[in-house]
Amino acid sequence: MAIETRLSDATIRRLSMYLRTLEMAQKQKIRTVSSQYIATENNITAAQVRKDLSYFGAFGRRGLGYNVSNLMSSISKLLGLNRIWNVALIGVGNIGRALIAYEGFRNRGFIIKLLIDNDPNKIGTKVNGLTIQSPKDAPLFFKEFDITITIISVPASEAQAAADLAIQSGCRAILNFAPVTLQVPPNVFVRQENMAYEIESLSFFLTNKKA
Amino acid sequence: MAIETRLSDATIRRLSMYLRTLEMAQKQKIRTVSSQYIATENNITAAQVRKDLSYFGAFGRRGLGYNVSNLMSSISKLLGLNRIWNVALIGVGNIGRALIAYEGFRNRGFIIKLLIDNDPNKIGTKVNGLTIQSPKDAPLFFKEFDITITIISVPASEAQAAADLAIQSGCRAILNFAPVTLQVPPNVFVRQENMAYEIESLSFFLTNKKA
Repeated sequence: MAIETRLSDATIRRLSMYLRTLEMAQKQKIRTVSSQYIATENNITAAQVRKDLSYFGAFGRRGLGYNVSNLMSSISKLLGLNRIWNVALIGVGNIGRALIAYEGFRNRGFIIKLLIDNDPNKIGTKVNGLTIQSPKDAPLFFKEFDITITIISVPASEAQAAADLAIQSGCRAILNFAPVTLQVPPNVFVRQENMAYEIESLSFFLTNKKA
Repeated sequence: MAIETRLSDATIRRLSMYLRTLEMAQKQKIRTVSSQYIATENNITAAQVRKDLSYFGAFGRRGLGYNVSNLMSSISKLLGLNRIWNVALIGVGNIGRALIAYEGFRNRGFIIKLLIDNDPNKIGTKVNGLTIQSPKDAPLFFKEFDITITIISVPASEAQAAADLAIQSGCRAILNFAPVTLQVPPNVFVRQENMAYEIESLSFFLTNKKA
């Protein structure tokens, strides 16, 4: 088994966090950072940072820290961020519109190329320069735009149908914003986004911890 | 130190995930679930589920599984979800509007009561029945609405000022959607939301794993 396939979801998530920390450091013209620096910025332990980065082999040198630019490049490559990913979005409602405008996707190479909605009043209209297409034309457009990732931002009751449509159209990676567990074949990757998780962690802290 | 203060961020996040799994089970009239059931629904190991739930003491009984209703109630209580939290939102742009309409907050007792924006064209207008207020009136309204959590959905360059405003207005819990690390006093809790983390985990899988 390759090293990469053994990384836990939590580790992958932390690597995304470290990448942001490194970007912020680079903006401030910082050229090397310690594991303690990365740890402090992310409210975790330096030991955790060293452990996570050890998966790559010997990046840092004791006493010298990590080279910001090299570490950014290595993490980006591991996460598949050194390329463009063409993305379809199904469900152009409130959350869908926010995601279409979200720079955090575009900056990372996730380019929304295709919008799909089943509302006849929306089909044919434009959002951010993209024409909203009908679900029935999905297979054609997924192929034309070489879509590899589908974002689902429809109501919960329509999410499984949206996932089925994406899979039938040849897509095998889904980011689901609807609050429902999707049933997919084993060769399809699904990530569940839930914007309430972080706020629940705040209410946990407010309830249990005395700052 | 109380048990609760030793729970890691990752554990708290998984408890939020388990709560959703239990809600889905309850909707399907399932009354007891095994750790394996919860594990399968969340793509983790049953050992991890048992370990996380062991923090509560002996919830499940070997061979009988966990009572869905009791476990939901215990997790809700631990996460502080057995009450109402009054929330302020600073920054009524695309993401702000999506969050105002987001049922995932309201369903959990996070009620957005106060909207703040520094755009003179927005101040005084209404979104979802709430009037957008000026930053200068923030301290007054934070007190009036008994705000305990602030959501920041302004551009990165304005996020620190928004955090300072919330803190000056007496708030000590912040959910930040802006892609920037906030500097806050030690008695203020901050959670960083980043909608790109999950999609980066998809690109990791597409790059490294063969399904």
